[in-house]
Amino acid sequence: MTSHGSLTNRSLTKCLRQAHLHSHPIPRSTCRSYSLAAAFSGNKTPKKKERVVIVGSGWAGYGFARALDPSKFERILVSPRSYFVFTPLLASTAVGTLEFRSVLEPIRRLPGPGVDFYQGWADHVDFAAKTIRVEANIADDLASQTVIPTPPPGPGAPRPPRAPPSPSPTTSSSSPAAPTPKPLAFPACANTPTSLRDIGDARRIRLRVLSLFEQCAHPSATSPLSDADRRALLHFAVVGGGPTGIEFAAELHDLIHEDLARLYPALVPLVRITVYDIAPKILPMFDQALAQYATRTFARQGIAVKTEHHLTNIRPADGGFGGLALRLAESGDEDVGAGMVVWSTGLMQNPFVERLEGAKFSLPGDSTTEYTLLPAPKTGGITTDEFLRARITSPTTSPATQTQILPDVFALGDCATVDTSPTLPKTAQVASQQASFLAKRLNKPGSRAAKKGFEFRNWGTMTYLGSWKAIHQSARDELRGWVAWLLWRGAYLTRTLSVRNKVMVPVYWAVSWVFGRDISRF
Amino acid sequence: MTSHGSLTNRSLTKCLRQAHLHSHPIPRSTCRSYSLAAAFSGNKTPKKKERVVIVGSGWAGYGFARALDPSKFERILVSPRSYFVFTPLLASTAVGTLEFRSVLEPIRRLPGPGVDFYQGWADHVDFAAKTIRVEANIADDLASQTVIPTPPPGPGAPRPPRAPPSPSPTTSSSSPAAPTPKPLAFPACANTPTSLRDIGDARRIRLRVLSLFEQCAHPSATSPLSDADRRALLHFAVVGGGPTGIEFAAELHDLIHEDLARLYPALVPLVRITVYDIAPKILPMFDQALAQYATRTFARQGIAVKTEHHLTNIRPADGGFGGLALRLAESGDEDVGAGMVVWSTGLMQNPFVERLEGAKFSLPGDSTTEYTLLPAPKTGGITTDEFLRARITSPTTSPATQTQILPDVFALGDCATVDTSPTLPKTAQVASQQASFLAKRLNKPGSRAAKKGFEFRNWGTMTYLGSWKAIHQSARDELRGWVAWLLWRGAYLTRTLSVRNKVMVPVYWAVSWVFGRDISRF
Repeated sequence: MTSHGSLTNRSLTKCLRQAHLHSHPIPRSTCRSYSLAAAFSGNKTPKKKERVVIVGSGWAGYGFARALDPSKFERILVSPRSYFVFTPLLASTAVGTLEFRSVLEPIRRLPGPGVDFYQGWADHVDFAAKTIRVEANIADDLASQTVIPTPPPGPGAPRPPRAPPSPSPTTSSSSPAAPTPKPLAFPACANTPTSLRDIGDARRIRLRVLSLFEQCAHPSATSPLSDADRRALLHFAVVGGGPTGIEFAAELHDLIHEDLARLYPALVPLVRITVYDIAPKILPMFDQALAQYATRTFARQGIAVKTEHHLTNIRPADGGFGGLALRLAESGDEDVGAGMVVWSTGLMQNPFVERLEGAKFSLPGDSTTEYTLLPAPKTGGITTDEFLRARITSPTTSPATQTQILPDVFALGDCATVDTSPTLPKTAQVASQQASFLAKRLNKPGSRAAKKGFEFRNWGTMTYLGSWKAIHQSARDELRGWVAWLLWRGAYLTRTLSVRNKVMVPVYWAVSWVFGRDISRF
Repeated sequence: MTSHGSLTNRSLTKCLRQAHLHSHPIPRSTCRSYSLAAAFSGNKTPKKKERVVIVGSGWAGYGFARALDPSKFERILVSPRSYFVFTPLLASTAVGTLEFRSVLEPIRRLPGPGVDFYQGWADHVDFAAKTIRVEANIADDLASQTVIPTPPPGPGAPRPPRAPPSPSPTTSSSSPAAPTPKPLAFPACANTPTSLRDIGDARRIRLRVLSLFEQCAHPSATSPLSDADRRALLHFAVVGGGPTGIEFAAELHDLIHEDLARLYPALVPLVRITVYDIAPKILPMFDQALAQYATRTFARQGIAVKTEHHLTNIRPADGGFGGLALRLAESGDEDVGAGMVVWSTGLMQNPFVERLEGAKFSLPGDSTTEYTLLPAPKTGGITTDEFLRARITSPTTSPATQTQILPDVFALGDCATVDTSPTLPKTAQVASQQASFLAKRLNKPGSRAAKKGFEFRNWGTMTYLGSWKAIHQSARDELRGWVAWLLWRGAYLTRTLSVRNKVMVPVYWAVSWVFGRDISRF
């Protein structure tokens, strides 16, 4: 489970005196709890700075921490992960075009005089006392994988996803800080479906894809694979036709046809990639023409796109050869075999934000009035005003003052909904712009710019389609083919944050192009 | 468990008809079995080549497969790992100077027309029928980690290692294909001691070192760490003063003082690195003067070297903070705390070779005479003649013919002992030279060189000592300091096998030097 979005709490100078933690079990690792209090006691700087606690290390949290002036603020970042993930290139690492570390930025290497970093899950915020509880995380490998929650054991039939899973503006390749996807009914097994939201997911997918080819290349005397088994194992199902799913399918296609075809020539005819979506078309954020171009490009590459398909169940296939059986509402009683399912649809609210939404609290000076955060009507999460300040509500006060601002608390990224804008997509672009906006405003509170509310500027959307082709769409222009691909690479390169990764990403592109992608499994 | 050394079996053209497999449970993964037979049936080349089965992908097996002429031989490689590890640089990957993949060479990318690769553990060889059984491995992440076997539950006292654990010529940084180290008495726990022989070990160590610093940086309200706890967690114990242990200690020192000191300044005074060895001095393969230089260099860097220390037990420390308690024969009843133990001492025979040693078999044409492989008297493993042909023995035949050559079976690397040479160390250098020797001999059987037996040429030994210093010793000269360090880097670079890694290794060196080592944990 990763912590997402960003909830910032200013002026917490005294807030952590009473901090304490409770534990809840974390699988696969000893779990212990740490309080932030002890760290701060010895941390008195000669010139007292205002303290800002940032929860989350995605596009919003990391971007905000990076832009906030460290000479004016004491920055404290809480996240279960020790890094920021440059999510647009995550799919490239999942197929080995790029090395995992080239899309990560360690939080402890944030520019400027050190940020105070606490690795753990934010567990509770007391808005009145201004304290925050953190559940420490020392299981790095666990934190780097998205946990797709298993549905509670219920009677019989598989449950459909709790919300329309796809495609919507919330399904986007540039939606990095996105929480776990909607659960579907499947039991836990060795090859459970994988998300592609964090580096551990990418690592798991890379290992799984290559292992499947190796498994199918092996002959067996005691439990031979039939060609039907091999066809099932080499069927890669992508659920969700948003940019994340489409780009992963495209990158997987490149891996298979540029590298694995040479190493496993006998297996390539058995390979299939299918993108499933319940909507009538993929890539809904693009113009009809570009989405059709994408569909045509996929068709030419042999990637099947099955729109208006409802996946209702996934279970381990019979026969024990490690495959999965997919049940689709459209295909009657027949299961579709697959070796791997990549889940790239829907967003589930971060459990911490979900808990905050339901929590009642009072504010200092008035212990009788009970408040809650104002939930966003459709999308859930925290409603903010145009300055990204969290709104609160109280049923007990007069209608005129029912909605107020919670002092010193800001929400940005996927967990927040600005109530003055048209509904913004939950994308990296929005989160990143909100982070810059808020940092600028806090860095120079008296400036003219600080008086203007947040406005989203659409810089355009890009999606890679495989075989050196991409599509790009902005308010001004539309591009497709290799020109868009060049722009795609260029845009990602200039946006990659640290100089180190600005060096490494093109090096890996060149090395993968010349020598092929690395295929060692470990 | 990795397969080691190399046992080659020529002329197996008909050998695999009856191949079948049995299963034994492999933890953490579904285990299934494959026979080689099925693969070969469809594999008839127009010009029938002689078939060579190579077991193992270390310096001997991979090196031999690489040098064998693919136009004359059909190469079949069996290994549980999908890659060859360039072991001299493994310690550099464990601290993040190099990326893991830069020291790996995928077996499926062996030069020349494809090698047939079967990922699994060789389980049994029937020398009469010329068949080999392979237990398939589909758990890559498991295969990449050295398993330190837990001793069988016995009464009371911890058992000492079964053989003098160190330092001997068998403990060497260039001993890659080395099997698992000697077991010591410790229960399995989350932070069990780690070897440094495969890429999964390096990954585990890298994660553990960085996690320990993060854990110690966290304050805790519910279970605070005392400074004594932190001191224990930041104590890194290296067991074994051979080149592997010394180089790892040196690289760890560099990581801590060049990178972590900046990120965790408050913790550096608590850090200790200790090398334990039961012998009176470290690096016994070096001259007294060079070994003393190494000891002095370590002393200046603050790395403690405790010779004549016997580690008798390791257990989880009391208090549940994740530390280990080390019991030393020399320190009476007092335990020494540590956060991590890296085991780099002693060699255990590969279980497959151990089984072969005990097995009785007969040869075609004479089903009454029972043979066994001739075991090497001191070191165990397979005895060979100067052409690396396996020797066999039979108690039932006349003394004159008691020792014979097993037709078409060769043994090289760590599993073999050439009985005409002075005892050779179990190092990469020896394995590598044996691989070239045998390949040349098989490639050109009629040549003059093919009539000469194997002779080892000592190219010299090098060990890195940290802070850009190294020692080098060969028959002709001795070097120390930064000159030796330059030679160390140069030698490793020119020996790194593929062009890809010849490009990547210096890139990583440069990037780590300029930007620091990567510290993201996942």
